[in-house]
Amino acid sequence: MGGQVVEDQQMLAPFLQSISAANLPCILVHGGGKIATEMAAQLKLEQKMIQGRRITDAATLKLVTMTYAGWINKNIVAQLNALGKNAIGLSGADAALIPSVKRNPDPLDFGFVGDPQPEWVNTHLLQMLLSANFFPVIAPITADSNGQLLNTNADTVAKTVALAMSPFFEVDLIYCFEKRGVLLDAKDDQSVLSQLNVKKYQEFKQSGVVHSGMIPKLDNAFDSLENGINSVVLGHALDIAALISGTSGTKITQE
Amino acid sequence: MGGQVVEDQQMLAPFLQSISAANLPCILVHGGGKIATEMAAQLKLEQKMIQGRRITDAATLKLVTMTYAGWINKNIVAQLNALGKNAIGLSGADAALIPSVKRNPDPLDFGFVGDPQPEWVNTHLLQMLLSANFFPVIAPITADSNGQLLNTNADTVAKTVALAMSPFFEVDLIYCFEKRGVLLDAKDDQSVLSQLNVKKYQEFKQSGVVHSGMIPKLDNAFDSLENGINSVVLGHALDIAALISGTSGTKITQE
Repeated sequence: MGGQVVEDQQMLAPFLQSISAANLPCILVHGGGKIATEMAAQLKLEQKMIQGRRITDAATLKLVTMTYAGWINKNIVAQLNALGKNAIGLSGADAALIPSVKRNPDPLDFGFVGDPQPEWVNTHLLQMLLSANFFPVIAPITADSNGQLLNTNADTVAKTVALAMSPFFEVDLIYCFEKRGVLLDAKDDQSVLSQLNVKKYQEFKQSGVVHSGMIPKLDNAFDSLENGINSVVLGHALDIAALISGTSGTKITQE
Repeated sequence: MGGQVVEDQQMLAPFLQSISAANLPCILVHGGGKIATEMAAQLKLEQKMIQGRRITDAATLKLVTMTYAGWINKNIVAQLNALGKNAIGLSGADAALIPSVKRNPDPLDFGFVGDPQPEWVNTHLLQMLLSANFFPVIAPITADSNGQLLNTNADTVAKTVALAMSPFFEVDLIYCFEKRGVLLDAKDDQSVLSQLNVKKYQEFKQSGVVHSGMIPKLDNAFDSLENGINSVVLGHALDIAALISGTSGTKITQE
């Protein structure tokens, strides 16, 4: 779950209510929305960008760890528990849940950014928690083997966890945010594609129908599908029940 | 663990190294040091005080949740895991670990401050984690049954967890910080008392030998001892091995 849902309590509260009602084992991975960017502005922390992508320097790492693993994660957990779930907040650093490697500074140094690997995920912890009826809520902060915290893309964290759990569960991966799915026209919520296959995706990327933030999300989606995830769907957080039942959003398909 | 140890990596790193070597089940509760106060200054967040005690308004709650449950907690966890422990960071809000009640605003409104009760602690989670060889690291943020996050005194959290676990384990409670224990002369580290009983404590409180931050710490210490904790010791974080073996610090005694 990401995008505006994270920062807008008017969307977050009904989303958490719907997902609480889902009667199956869930793992929630959340993003950070624009909360970290707003905090950075308040702290007069200059955000360094290279080719439109944010650089995680030491001050930014501190800020995103505070925001994602602290404020956002604990708020979600407290609200889920008030709804009767047994939510437990984790970052990828906890119990080496999602070990990652600091991204190679060559050719572009993104700073304290981590790339995780599905085969390293502490699936033992997640299996133990799920079988004891806990609801893991994961913030996109990871650590390397030296104890260095690393900022990590939330969509990649979701994919990594989904892939790691796929030998043990039939995993459905749902990316939800404030759009109804992949839209043919970004301004028209009715133009949602019910399905998207690799071939069409390549065409849409070239023609520019799909752009900016949707590209890494969809790259992660296709990568997941090719590597053993049962299904991948993108859609609106407020439609989470319908996304789970497969009656809303854009379903990613191989053919 | 609290005080300067939290914010000073020169003390934190060797402390974490020593506690990693301790060959017995541990739960680490940490405070926030002055990190939240420094962040508040940076954010130009005015800290409201009543009778020398900080009021936790909404902005301060956000700040302490970010700082304690985010930055401090995840840093400690990542460092412990790099030392080969299986550390998992939690706040009192996770899995309703330490349910608390917002403090009565009458006669003094401290804002979003929580008072926890030992009988409500989710000991099931802690027992499950300890028996699976995890090392729980707890940040002093709790939540009430409505999902409201609450700032909670770290010494009280430590006492609450210790009391809650005492039916299942022989619990030794160690308060460690940057002093060698209870000092007869605050400026002389050699003046540490090896033992302190209730009667002497009352005398020291009246004469002013013991004052300010030590009073709530010692009140918690005596309260723990009266309610079933095996032993309570206060001392220097860098002496943690000796504090565990009972050869350093101030031992709290009933008589």
